[in-house]
Amino acid sequence: MEGVDHLAHERNRAQFDVDEMKIVWAGSRHAYEVSDRMSRLVANDPAFRKDNRAQLTRKELFKNTLRKATYAWKRILELKLSEEEAGRLRFFVDEPAFTDLHWGMFVPFLKGQGTEEQLQKWLPLANRLQIIGCYAQTELGHGSNVQGLETTATFDPKTDEFVIHSPTLTSSKWWPGGLGKVSTHAIVFSRLITDGQDYGVHGFLVQIRSLNDHSVLPGITIGDIGMKFGNGAYNTMDNGVMHFDHFRIPRDQLLTRISQVTREGKYVQSDAPRQLVYGTMVFVRKAIVIDASSALSRAVCIATRYSAVRRQFGSQDGVETQVINYKTQQSRLFPLLASAYAFRFVGEWLQWLYTDVTQRLAASDFSTLPEAHACTAGLKSITTAATADGIEECRKLCGGHGYLCSSGLPELFAVYVPACTYEGDNVVLLLQVARFLVKTMSQLASGKKPVGTAAYMGRLQHLMESSCKVQKAEDWLNPSVVLEVFEARSARMSVECAKRLGEFTNQEEGFQELSPSLVEAAAAYCQLIIVSKYIEKLQGDIPGKGIKEQLQILCSIYALYTLHKHKGDFLSTSTITPKQASLADDQLRSLYSQVRPNAIALVDAFNYTDHYLGSILGRYDGNVYPNLYDEAWKDPLNDSAIPDGYHEYIKPLLKQQLRNARL
Amino acid sequence: MEGVDHLAHERNRAQFDVDEMKIVWAGSRHAYEVSDRMSRLVANDPAFRKDNRAQLTRKELFKNTLRKATYAWKRILELKLSEEEAGRLRFFVDEPAFTDLHWGMFVPFLKGQGTEEQLQKWLPLANRLQIIGCYAQTELGHGSNVQGLETTATFDPKTDEFVIHSPTLTSSKWWPGGLGKVSTHAIVFSRLITDGQDYGVHGFLVQIRSLNDHSVLPGITIGDIGMKFGNGAYNTMDNGVMHFDHFRIPRDQLLTRISQVTREGKYVQSDAPRQLVYGTMVFVRKAIVIDASSALSRAVCIATRYSAVRRQFGSQDGVETQVINYKTQQSRLFPLLASAYAFRFVGEWLQWLYTDVTQRLAASDFSTLPEAHACTAGLKSITTAATADGIEECRKLCGGHGYLCSSGLPELFAVYVPACTYEGDNVVLLLQVARFLVKTMSQLASGKKPVGTAAYMGRLQHLMESSCKVQKAEDWLNPSVVLEVFEARSARMSVECAKRLGEFTNQEEGFQELSPSLVEAAAAYCQLIIVSKYIEKLQGDIPGKGIKEQLQILCSIYALYTLHKHKGDFLSTSTITPKQASLADDQLRSLYSQVRPNAIALVDAFNYTDHYLGSILGRYDGNVYPNLYDEAWKDPLNDSAIPDGYHEYIKPLLKQQLRNARL
Repeated sequence: MEGVDHLAHERNRAQFDVDEMKIVWAGSRHAYEVSDRMSRLVANDPAFRKDNRAQLTRKELFKNTLRKATYAWKRILELKLSEEEAGRLRFFVDEPAFTDLHWGMFVPFLKGQGTEEQLQKWLPLANRLQIIGCYAQTELGHGSNVQGLETTATFDPKTDEFVIHSPTLTSSKWWPGGLGKVSTHAIVFSRLITDGQDYGVHGFLVQIRSLNDHSVLPGITIGDIGMKFGNGAYNTMDNGVMHFDHFRIPRDQLLTRISQVTREGKYVQSDAPRQLVYGTMVFVRKAIVIDASSALSRAVCIATRYSAVRRQFGSQDGVETQVINYKTQQSRLFPLLASAYAFRFVGEWLQWLYTDVTQRLAASDFSTLPEAHACTAGLKSITTAATADGIEECRKLCGGHGYLCSSGLPELFAVYVPACTYEGDNVVLLLQVARFLVKTMSQLASGKKPVGTAAYMGRLQHLMESSCKVQKAEDWLNPSVVLEVFEARSARMSVECAKRLGEFTNQEEGFQELSPSLVEAAAAYCQLIIVSKYIEKLQGDIPGKGIKEQLQILCSIYALYTLHKHKGDFLSTSTITPKQASLADDQLRSLYSQVRPNAIALVDAFNYTDHYLGSILGRYDGNVYPNLYDEAWKDPLNDSAIPDGYHEYIKPLLKQQLRNARL
Repeated sequence: MEGVDHLAHERNRAQFDVDEMKIVWAGSRHAYEVSDRMSRLVANDPAFRKDNRAQLTRKELFKNTLRKATYAWKRILELKLSEEEAGRLRFFVDEPAFTDLHWGMFVPFLKGQGTEEQLQKWLPLANRLQIIGCYAQTELGHGSNVQGLETTATFDPKTDEFVIHSPTLTSSKWWPGGLGKVSTHAIVFSRLITDGQDYGVHGFLVQIRSLNDHSVLPGITIGDIGMKFGNGAYNTMDNGVMHFDHFRIPRDQLLTRISQVTREGKYVQSDAPRQLVYGTMVFVRKAIVIDASSALSRAVCIATRYSAVRRQFGSQDGVETQVINYKTQQSRLFPLLASAYAFRFVGEWLQWLYTDVTQRLAASDFSTLPEAHACTAGLKSITTAATADGIEECRKLCGGHGYLCSSGLPELFAVYVPACTYEGDNVVLLLQVARFLVKTMSQLASGKKPVGTAAYMGRLQHLMESSCKVQKAEDWLNPSVVLEVFEARSARMSVECAKRLGEFTNQEEGFQELSPSLVEAAAAYCQLIIVSKYIEKLQGDIPGKGIKEQLQILCSIYALYTLHKHKGDFLSTSTITPKQASLADDQLRSLYSQVRPNAIALVDAFNYTDHYLGSILGRYDGNVYPNLYDEAWKDPLNDSAIPDGYHEYIKPLLKQQLRNARL
């Protein structure tokens, strides 16, 4: 049976060119080719095997990850891979490691906040991994509220040094990835104190381990914070705890692009705009949105393929029905498929936004910054929350077998969920978006024109009065109709919040009291962005047989499913009528039927190798059951027929000899 | 600091008698006392330590569970515990083990399906654990659809035996807990074939391992199916795979209360009503609903206590605000607190329903059976789905630290989620409920009066025409107003479905096509049951200072939160107006403020020991951070300062000596 494609009949049904869709998914032919090459390189190298992760102890797992990370770097050097190729290679290795934080946080922050002089000194070392860096911001008692951090860096003019100190237990640095066992350096966020005054939180470059023997430097205590959620998952990473006891660093290790302390201890702001930090934020959150589409598409790929393999009930001629044919399965699975594509395209757009923001910052144009910041924060929140829930939904859609580690879904969930919390808790971020919306509303009166994704608020009058024109189900396929109801719903929810806020004499008190509604208004705005960017994408030229048709169907599914899920918003703002809501549901069911024959090809377009998927249920060839069966026997419990513990515990029970049993 | 109660100020704010609430939660003073005694017995015995589960390898974990299960049984015998006490003791040991299936499935099924003769032979052995049984129903390729099972039991009149056989790979038994390594016997579901005819699936009692040396009997292949979701969690259990090769058992091991095969091979139905099997179903699902309230309350207890400990933002006098004071936190946490209580009370009512069903079955009264079956199936679905989501929400409500195994929440989630799939997939169950609703509607025309939880449909005319009387927020506190809107919403959704179904010429095709809407109508009916049973509970006498007031607040929160979440249903059926929906939100926020001072006491009322909670974040004394800090150092990675793998992998990297490194 080796080599037989059990899903060939499904692939033959596709009404579009799957190779062209792979390019659309990747973003460009070049991106596709790099990804394709790197994913095969990893998949074909047994050194990157990962199917045994659930079996390893913490120590074995961690050591194994060290090996892979170093081996990957060796390959990157040997093959002279470009930065882009190296990034994709690490992506497909698919194992959280210290390198993620070194390349993803330490180096970018250094670049963003260091002066030319500092960069000259540190960047070459970091780029060659002669030093390994981590990003030490959060503390045991302090997460989202960076301004509440307790670690201090007090300038000592006598020695021209900063004294880094952890004044309390709760000020211990806690969580930084790579800190626990590997990093030699850290960017440590501390309150800068000089001349008796606290200037707030700043980043300091601190060497924490000896470059000779890797021992932790005197005055610092470092450890790993222990096991985290899931089998494998982030347990490959040494998230760490770090406590400082009056540890001294040279003055020039304050990262001083934005502010510095003179030899005499005087705090001086540089003339570099403080807004620069927003550029980094947009960069990091854009990457998180793209990661969301990767993680969700991976889960969807597994669940879709297995839904075509698995049969339950409805026997015809003695063969049960493929579960993918059930409308209940479709109504849960296909919106997630559509979401994966929608998040991909909004991520692509964020890539553009980041370039735009960078160019404007360089030209000292800060006018779009609040809007850019709000929409990246909001999209990070919406896409990561939907992805976390979506992975678990995909697991449930695989029935009982989704609960097996060999399905790949438990680990995917466990490794993904932190995205809802890190880089800004999702609810805290939506509250920031809400503040932006409220402010934008209040500025409308003074004639300030909203920009970018908020530009639609400029047509507030129209959106408050417009009525949805849908009369039959197919009317819901009209993009301008869909766009306008999403705009109207978002605008009306914001207006309602602003109105309610106006009833409070203390605005801040009102904001706190109404925060649950404000969060919902912020989500409505973000969903509008996703829908509108998808529609924009479809307005461009997309070549390839049947490609645009499929993408249009998925766009409609994303929009109408979102409308269904938040029907209460649309109805309570009188944006649509109950009859129109019902017509949207009818249209949605009909769209599911159109996706059905293309479903397998639409997940094939993600171009994931079986290695990357890491799931027996999601195997490309659909040959699930023999492989599930074989996999079971690999569990260490199956090493012996009689289990360890039989003589001590089971036998005395069965033989009724408990009295003298040593338990 | 040992012994200091960091949450004392919270406990002092409570406006009700927490000891009385403990009794309400437990169901009776007797139930409270048994639970209290058993939970302390377990908590105080170091043999039941469980804080090291995440660190153990699969084999260590499994052996450790064998020890605990046997030790627990020894204690049960030594202390001469009653069946009730023994059940509570096992509950608080809190570790899935073969005993769960032996006592929870094997013994009850034996009792339900065995004849007097069979019971006399097998029950004493099972009750003394001289045999250990499991429940072998699902197969590798067959889950929810029991009628699709492939294993055969063919009667051989020559030897007076059944020949049990697995004709295909997919017919391998797959998932049964306790099967992989421990059970000596199994109830094996197979297609009964005699005289060339297939009589469908029946239960057979099959010995699978030798009682002498525990070896698997010849003709049977058994193994463990491998690692499952999470650290610890169900990896303590030997879920198994079993394949039969023409394995022979005596004819009298067909469980024959309902049907038997004569010596000559003739299939004979007994006169026992086939409906008896529904009694077992109601029993098992009732237990699952009560388990849901236990699991959810446990997560809520952890998240509530830690929300009072944790502080973020909003600094006043240099101290940050307790996160439990934020309305966004309250609006996510308090509905889950209310749900835990609501599920508890509906579980209590299901206990009554089970007694009622049992008595009626004994009297051959089957009139309430369809309704009882539908509502237990539906409540199983609704409560387990809400609990699984609720546990993960509680984890997120704890911020980053909820991701640590020491928070207890990752394992609680991983060990709980199978409840959404086992004993009937949640969506499949809601479709069964929908079939019942459609049937009930169609029978209304013929004058058949709906009973029990469906009785409200007898007032269909009124419910279709009634309008909600709410004019101000406080009107939403009126139970009869709330009850009527839940009834009207449910009735109108069912009517709409029935109307749409009527448009199809093929009813079954219509049912498939409209299944997503039917599932929503079924959920609406189940939510109505939960609300109505909670309201009924409040109509009874509930003594104790402030108890009833608190329970009323939580009841209103459950109802109005559900209304908010499903606002689209209420609005699209014109059950309420947008204005009334907005008033419900206002009332909800005000209720959150009323819960706030009582929140800690309301979770104290669950009376969980720190051992059972298994969470540093949820510690009774609120002394979280020093304990989190200490716990971190116990990770094996912290055994040495320089990690295993430094010399092989980190050093060559830092020293730029990769060329000759062996990786």
